[in-house]
This record gives sequence, structure tokens and C-alpha cells, in this order.
Amino acid sequence: MSESFRVIDVDVHNEQNDSAFVPYLPEPWKSRVAASGIGMAGSGYYSPVGVLRRDSVPPGGGKAGSDPEFMLKQLVEAYNMDYAILTGVIYNISATHDADFAAAICSAYNDYLIAEWLSKSSKFKGAMAVATQDPYLAAREIDRIGGHPDIVEVIISSAARMPLGQRYYHPIYEACERNGLPLAIHPGAEGAGSSTPPTAAGYPSRYIEWHTCLSQMFMTHLVSMVCEGVFVKYPNLKVVLTEGGIAWLPGLMWRLDKNYKALRSTVPWLTRLPSEYIREHCYLSTQPIEEPDDPQHLVDLFNMIDAENILMFSSDYPHWDFDAPTQILRKLKPEAKRKIFAENARALYKLP
Amino acid sequence: MSESFRVIDVDVHNEQNDSAFVPYLPEPWKSRVAASGIGMAGSGYYSPVGVLRRDSVPPGGGKAGSDPEFMLKQLVEAYNMDYAILTGVIYNISATHDADFAAAICSAYNDYLIAEWLSKSSKFKGAMAVATQDPYLAAREIDRIGGHPDIVEVIISSAARMPLGQRYYHPIYEACERNGLPLAIHPGAEGAGSSTPPTAAGYPSRYIEWHTCLSQMFMTHLVSMVCEGVFVKYPNLKVVLTEGGIAWLPGLMWRLDKNYKALRSTVPWLTRLPSEYIREHCYLSTQPIEEPDDPQHLVDLFNMIDAENILMFSSDYPHWDFDAPTQILRKLKPEAKRKIFAENARALYKLP
Repeated sequence: MSESFRVIDVDVHNEQNDSAFVPYLPEPWKSRVAASGIGMAGSGYYSPVGVLRRDSVPPGGGKAGSDPEFMLKQLVEAYNMDYAILTGVIYNISATHDADFAAAICSAYNDYLIAEWLSKSSKFKGAMAVATQDPYLAAREIDRIGGHPDIVEVIISSAARMPLGQRYYHPIYEACERNGLPLAIHPGAEGAGSSTPPTAAGYPSRYIEWHTCLSQMFMTHLVSMVCEGVFVKYPNLKVVLTEGGIAWLPGLMWRLDKNYKALRSTVPWLTRLPSEYIREHCYLSTQPIEEPDDPQHLVDLFNMIDAENILMFSSDYPHWDFDAPTQILRKLKPEAKRKIFAENARALYKLP
Repeated sequence: MSESFRVIDVDVHNEQNDSAFVPYLPEPWKSRVAASGIGMAGSGYYSPVGVLRRDSVPPGGGKAGSDPEFMLKQLVEAYNMDYAILTGVIYNISATHDADFAAAICSAYNDYLIAEWLSKSSKFKGAMAVATQDPYLAAREIDRIGGHPDIVEVIISSAARMPLGQRYYHPIYEACERNGLPLAIHPGAEGAGSSTPPTAAGYPSRYIEWHTCLSQMFMTHLVSMVCEGVFVKYPNLKVVLTEGGIAWLPGLMWRLDKNYKALRSTVPWLTRLPSEYIREHCYLSTQPIEEPDDPQHLVDLFNMIDAENILMFSSDYPHWDFDAPTQILRKLKPEAKRKIFAENARALYKLP
């Protein structure tokens, strides 16, 4: 790999068994998890290829993605990455019913993340997790941990009970802004537990449908955040739409801008076109990148969204649909490649 | 307008007051509607500009779009249209709870449509409405009315209790195929009555959000119809995605095709890429057409979806966001214009 090809991977899933949480949990949760595990609500959709790379199981055994040393070797060093942003998977707890339990699990995870991952390499940076069931507890957790120098982001689930722009959630955004942290939104628990059904038309039958439709949550959340005035109320908030796909964005911006022209009296706090707020406040991660047969279509898509300035590379390691930085977007022009693969993330996360 | 510019408008909403149904209803529904109206379930989302063109109220008064003579003058003759496909608005009844009532309302509407609209001009062609609460009653209605020479399509609501590909709905598709009628799917009742919430993440706050997110229902239905094998089981079925937007389609096809390559063991009845079924079986109506600032983006979008062969012009008359055939897509090449504005519809609906 060329020395000048810098890579920051903004969506790396450090996995762990439930037992990893036990030392970091207070009672009564410690005994519960020690005895029965976390008991995360699951959507029930089944992937016939699994959801983890089989070759990412560490040599000593355990879950794929659960060993910091092996992750450094198989991902960070193999692709000569500057940084890997560790996103975990515990954001999915937001679909589980008990708000206090979910908040305790996130706090335990954040302490575990700092102690057992971020301390292992300066190339690991952390997305701290908060649960959305109680936005005031989430804000308190952001204030507790958000100032740690290796925490660069707050991550929440895209699975939710209502669109993420609604006022219920605003304490989370206020805390992100107060702590200077971008907010990442990640899919995974759509249709599980207390989440809405995973698509606008309810529950599809199988994983291929569920996975293909995951972008819908992001569409609703983005429209909601813009129209509820989140970016007016929190002008320094940045949002990272992680693993939500990309190709739906141009149509959404065009349709929302067009509707705004006729219907803006119902969103009087917006003083600019909705797409301008999106372009100013939002980033999208690349994986799973769309792969049209005709590569020109991807070029056209990138022009529509000014990809150079809003995309950030992600591999989704160690998940089944991992994108290697050497395999995707090989035909980008050098300046676009530099920004998408590293510099947009470096600026957003204030990394050296 | 040039003599050679032919126009077929595939989404024209003939409106009517509830009292119009009364003569066509049997008891006990006749007395109910005469006394209290239909009592359609409504979503509660409010458009500050209304949903009907104010200049489309007939000279004699009544609802915009409710007078055949005035519609012929203001729409069909004004734009020298070959045909207007009358889609009504009664498909929205599918979100109302009582399946027998919904079926009776649709039957009354279909008789009213034939008697009071299709008889008035050979330029009017009809989309017969069926309710999706009881697919067997819907199939019976398609067999009852579908053979009428001026009925060219069956129309159902995109608001639904579950994705439209699921087996529950198949009797409707079987009846469409048996009668040689395309199936149109139209939004309007999303979030009303027994419909799912209107977006994947639940209920947004206002009309601009609701309207911008309407495409999500179509995304789910299309993925579901392909993955459930509807187009394998009913190889002659054609589906018209009416008023659902366009720009979401390329991304959906790319993502679904990519997922199919990894996950096809769960949809073994598919023998080709999902996008191939979509291209072979589906049409999209144009209104509300996306309007990017940069017109090249629309050209690029059209290339991605082979617009020339799957789009059909619609005005959505007399709704607030009406698109005049003289105002949109003016820069299309002649062959694409000919097909999108008339010939795709002429072939699909077997019109002279």
C-alpha cells in the first residue's frame, strides 16, 4: 500500500461476550448479567451467512473482533490505518425495555471500552454508547465519560420508538454539543424489542429484505432532525449516519427541499433549504457501499451528494459484509480519496 | 403544443363527495353513508397549502376534480391528452377497519366510476379500486368488474398492515393476472387507521415529513414483492408504483442485488438478479418528480433506472403539487419523451 494512502476506519465493531461487562456493572445488574447474560432484545432475522467474518475469530478463540491484539494485526496494521473508531455493538441495547438496565449496560461498556481497548493502542479511538430510553440518563453519561481524550464520538441506535428529531431526544444532542462530540447513529436492532417495525410497511419476512430496507430508519431520522430544528437548536452538532447506505440521500434532499418550498410555514425555524443543514451537519460512512454494475453511476451519485466532503470510509470489520479500504472506491480522484479515506474523519474527530 | 406531443396521464384523481356513493351501495351501508358519510380513517397530517388546487373547483361548485366536464376542459383538453387514467381516491379505504364495509365502498365506487365518469368521454379510462383488508373479496371484485372495456387497471393503497409481497395478498395479484390488469399502488393513508405508522421509525410530526417519507412504503413493498417471489408466481403481473417518487430506486436495486449475491439461499425461487424482476415488471409514475438544482443530476438518475422504459407521466391533477406535462422533463430526448409521456402507458394499458 502506498505510504501516502492514509486510512481512518470510522466503523469498527469490537465485540465481546456478555461476561466482559460483569466487572464494570454495579448491583443489581452485576448478578443478573453474571447469571443470565445481557438478554438483548433481538429482531429474529437470520442471516444465512452469519453476521461475523469467520476468519476474524482470534487465534486464542472467542468472538470474532473480541481481541484487541488480533484486531490490530488483522485490520489496523494490515491496512496501515491511522485510526480505528471502535463502535462496539452495545448501542443495540436501546431496543431493550428497561431504561435503567440499558443505561447501566452502556456505562459498563464505556468503562470497559476505555480500560480494555483504548488503553491498548493509540490507534484505537472510542465511540461511547448511550441508550435512548432515558435521554436524561444518556446526557448524564455523556457528561461523565465524554471528556476522556480517547472518546471521540457518542453512538446511539437507529432502532427507536419515534423519529430521532423529536424533542424527547434533545437532551442527548445538547450533551453532545456541550462535550464537543459528534453523534453517530447505527442500525442493528430494527424491529427488535421496543423498536418500531423495521420498515414503514411493517415486518418483512427475511434478513435480505430487512437489511435492504435498513436505510428507511435513517431517512426518517434525518428528515425529522432537520424539520424539528435540531440543527438550528444545536448549531455545532454533527451527525454521522453510520452503515445506513448512501444512494437514498440525493432523492431525499431533492424531495425535502421541494416540499420545503411549499410547506415551510410549518417549519418556520428553518431559514435555509433542508439540504443545506444536511450538508453542513451530516456525514455518512461508506460501508455497505452501493455497487452499481456501471461504475459511472457511482461517480454520478457521488457528484449528487458532494461525496468528497460528507463521506467517511468504514470497513464494518469484523462483520460479514466487510469492505477493505484497498477494494472499494479505487477510482476516486486523489483529493476525494484523501478526504473520504481519512481527512474528513480526522477533521471531524479532531485527530492528529 | 406540438401535434406530435402525445400525453397519457396515469394518475388523475376524480374526486367526489361521500353522497355520490349512496345510490350504488346496498344496505346496510347505504343508510350508514347517507346518514354519516364514509368516515374514512385519516392520518391527521395537515398540509398548510391544502391538498387540492383551488382553481380546480368546478364553476358549479363542489370538490375540486369532481366534475367530469370541467376536468375534461381544465386538464384533458387543455393539454391535448390522449387519455386520463382516473385513479379516484377511494383506495385509501384500505386503512379503515371493517373489511366488509371497505369492500362495499370499493364496489360502489367502481360502479359509480363506470356510470358517471367512464361513460362521459372515451378519453377517460378507469383504475378500479379494491380494498386490501380481505384479498378474497378484492379478487371477487376484480373478476366482477375487471373485464369492463374501460377499466385498465386495479388500484390499491400503499398504506398497509404488512409488506405487500406477503402471501396474504396473493389472491389480489392472481386476480389481476387472470384479468390482464396491471396493479397500481398509491399512497395517501399512511399512518391512518389500521395502517402501519407512516415511516420505519414511527410517526413524524408534520405533513412535510410525512410526505417526504412516503417513498419508504414503496421501498418495502417492492423489496417484499420481489423477495416473496410475486413476479415468479405471477409472471404476467405488472405493477405501477404511483406517486411514490423515483430517486430512491437505483440505490434500492443496487443494495438488493448486492445482498442477493450473498443471501440468495433464502430466496431460492429467484433465478435472476432482483433488479431484473423490477425492470421487467414495474413502472413508476412521474409525479412528484424530483427536481435537483443541477438538471444533469436528473439526467444521471434517469440513466440509472432506464427511465425511458419504466417511467409514465402523471400530473396528480387536481392535487396541490400538480405537474403540468408542459412544465416537467422538457429537456428529454424525443424518443424518451414519447415513451414517458404516452407510449409506455399506451402499451401497458393496451390503449389505441
